[in-house]
Amino acid sequence: MQSLLSGASPSMEVDAVSILKSITPSLESSKHKGQAGKIAVVGGCREYTGAPYFSAISALKIGADLSHVFCTKDAAPVIKGYSPELIVHPILEESYSVRDEDKKSISAKVIEEVDKWMERFDCLAIGPGLGRDPFLLDCVSNIMKRARQSNVPMVIDGDGLFLVTNSLDLISGYPLAVLTPNVNEYKRLVQKVLQCEVNDRDGTQQLLSLAKGIGGATILRKGESDLISNGETVHAVSSFGSPRRCGGQGDILSGSVAVFVSWARQAADKAGEPSMSPTVMGCIAGSVLLRKAASHAFESSRRSTLTTDIIEHLGRSLEELCPVLVSQYMGH
Amino acid sequence: MQSLLSGASPSMEVDAVSILKSITPSLESSKHKGQAGKIAVVGGCREYTGAPYFSAISALKIGADLSHVFCTKDAAPVIKGYSPELIVHPILEESYSVRDEDKKSISAKVIEEVDKWMERFDCLAIGPGLGRDPFLLDCVSNIMKRARQSNVPMVIDGDGLFLVTNSLDLISGYPLAVLTPNVNEYKRLVQKVLQCEVNDRDGTQQLLSLAKGIGGATILRKGESDLISNGETVHAVSSFGSPRRCGGQGDILSGSVAVFVSWARQAADKAGEPSMSPTVMGCIAGSVLLRKAASHAFESSRRSTLTTDIIEHLGRSLEELCPVLVSQYMGH
Repeated sequence: MQSLLSGASPSMEVDAVSILKSITPSLESSKHKGQAGKIAVVGGCREYTGAPYFSAISALKIGADLSHVFCTKDAAPVIKGYSPELIVHPILEESYSVRDEDKKSISAKVIEEVDKWMERFDCLAIGPGLGRDPFLLDCVSNIMKRARQSNVPMVIDGDGLFLVTNSLDLISGYPLAVLTPNVNEYKRLVQKVLQCEVNDRDGTQQLLSLAKGIGGATILRKGESDLISNGETVHAVSSFGSPRRCGGQGDILSGSVAVFVSWARQAADKAGEPSMSPTVMGCIAGSVLLRKAASHAFESSRRSTLTTDIIEHLGRSLEELCPVLVSQYMGH
Repeated sequence: MQSLLSGASPSMEVDAVSILKSITPSLESSKHKGQAGKIAVVGGCREYTGAPYFSAISALKIGADLSHVFCTKDAAPVIKGYSPELIVHPILEESYSVRDEDKKSISAKVIEEVDKWMERFDCLAIGPGLGRDPFLLDCVSNIMKRARQSNVPMVIDGDGLFLVTNSLDLISGYPLAVLTPNVNEYKRLVQKVLQCEVNDRDGTQQLLSLAKGIGGATILRKGESDLISNGETVHAVSSFGSPRRCGGQGDILSGSVAVFVSWARQAADKAGEPSMSPTVMGCIAGSVLLRKAASHAFESSRRSTLTTDIIEHLGRSLEELCPVLVSQYMGH
């Protein structure tokens, strides 16, 4: 059993639904735009446009008020075309479109643009469809440094993980960083940080060591069970999801965790010292919601379930896990 | 009767549903992204963008995990716009946009880009919406040579058939090539390879000779009955489809056969020597599924049935032919 679940033991299973409920904010008529979360996705290049869209639209569908995308100039019109709900900033550039002598000024302009917005964001999702162009990754490193200076949490996935695995100092010792590696990305992280291979017989201990090795960033290791650790504890979310492994589900998760981390921090601000780290709570909530939505999508679409089908089930799934109380928003 | 079915005799009719079931993989929670198939479509130019989309999205709707498109720079934003689920690489160029002195370097760059991905693909579909630009076809010839070196199966349709009919050595003697000609494409193949006209009184024998003449590539001859041969046997799939002949159904077939060929090869790897060639099995499964989906689409939309309607019925049709067993993915 333990090996099946990549090292999860039943005792680590967490009451994910209660955690999701405890951080999901009430809806009140007196609130104004932005209070339920302002998210930004950094990703989208000539090759990839679906991934940043999935991440950004998921954030909205879960309940964020505003969802931005910072992507390359090529990717922007396509991503805008997927949905008029997103705010898409075409500010990044890839090497092929930039002359060497212009790199410095373009890089400075990217930061200038991002700086206008940074302090307004509650969380960034870095990496969906980012690609691996060296100049682009260099600009994104600078964005991450600014986010860190401004204490903005970051959820890092996909090519963002490629970037931080090769530049660990970008997130090392930053407790507001969340890493969401899949099986291959996890392998590369373990090799880089712990200088050994993945060991599933002692998966829990290794995950703890990895999170400690990165200095307290939170790791959500995706798998049959999702395992979450910030170096102090390990929690598992194993609720039933979907056996379809179509590309794009990780993008839903990054947008979703970005929202829940924002909400968990808000809740912690209100309630004082929480019993669990807000980034860990955000990961747990994101994981259980994706699993619920994927299971609903799979029920209706079976083998032909795609990522867009799962996104369509986010709202219903969240309502099932955490129903809106009419009294809350009616002001009774 | 025989002439009506373009040379099919009842004895060649194959139990296509059993074959489809025998190669469709089980869904298990322990599997990870990519294991149910990674497909790439090579096609899409300034003129044609629908065909590669139909092919690539069909692959996903049947159950592939990832579906890529390699197309021209003009075609890419449009194809991306049809669906965020596809990964679209804008790497091909047509003569009108290329100076003679740049052709060599661009051609080299195309191969460099494709090489990054080739070994990850389980099957290519070559030809949907490819067009007939000489420089572009030259680049695609190089892609086919690389696929062959890497033992990646190829389903060749549309303008891909125009290309290989004029350059038979691209596929001659390659048992992992599948050709899916319609009536006109079949005629040109027969003329080129057998140097005679199509003879429907002895259609079965001629198809066998044609497949043998190409050195064991598998031919799926589309018609009232689909006839499938790799030069050793001829199988027919005649189940009821749709009398609508709207353009694009062949693109569904190419994406669909690409998935089923991948699955048949996976199944053969597990089970040892199969009783039937995996490429033949893939053709049979693709044919019967398209017929089922087309019949469902025609039931509801009649004369206004379009290719997108048929694609919307792929999931339900596959579920009817090969239901997901809940016990499989629940891990019981």
